[in-house]
Amino acid sequence: MTGTTTTHLTVEGMTCDHCVAAVRQELGTLDGVSDVQVDLASGAVEVRSTRALDEAELVAAIDEAGYRVVR
Amino acid sequence: MTGTTTTHLTVEGMTCDHCVAAVRQELGTLDGVSDVQVDLASGAVEVRSTRALDEAELVAAIDEAGYRVVR
Repeated sequence: MTGTTTTHLTVEGMTCDHCVAAVRQELGTLDGVSDVQVDLASGAVEVRSTRALDEAELVAAIDEAGYRVVR
Repeated sequence: MTGTTTTHLTVEGMTCDHCVAAVRQELGTLDGVSDVQVDLASGAVEVRSTRALDEAELVAAIDEAGYRVVR
């Protein structure tokens, strides 16, 4: 049986569409991620994946992109 | 005799380093441009070139990057 995991997080520091693109690109490199939706205004990020994502890898990816996950 | 022209302009709408990079890249495509310095906080842009740049091409380049020149 297969399923899709949806993970929600909030990212702070994004100010423009370039930032959104950077976050989307970095999260997209995580294994199993199939889709990333980002709302610039609120910082809300929704990640769809074929496996459960752990917080550490999400935080690391956002950090790599140059932003911060709100805890 | 050769010389370097320095042109100053102010760009509004840049919010992050990605924006700075986009402006630098677009201005860098103009013929004769040898260096572009951008101050994100103030929007001040300094363009060095081997020929005089006219306002229309500068405005067009900034528009292409997605920002506006303050007149």
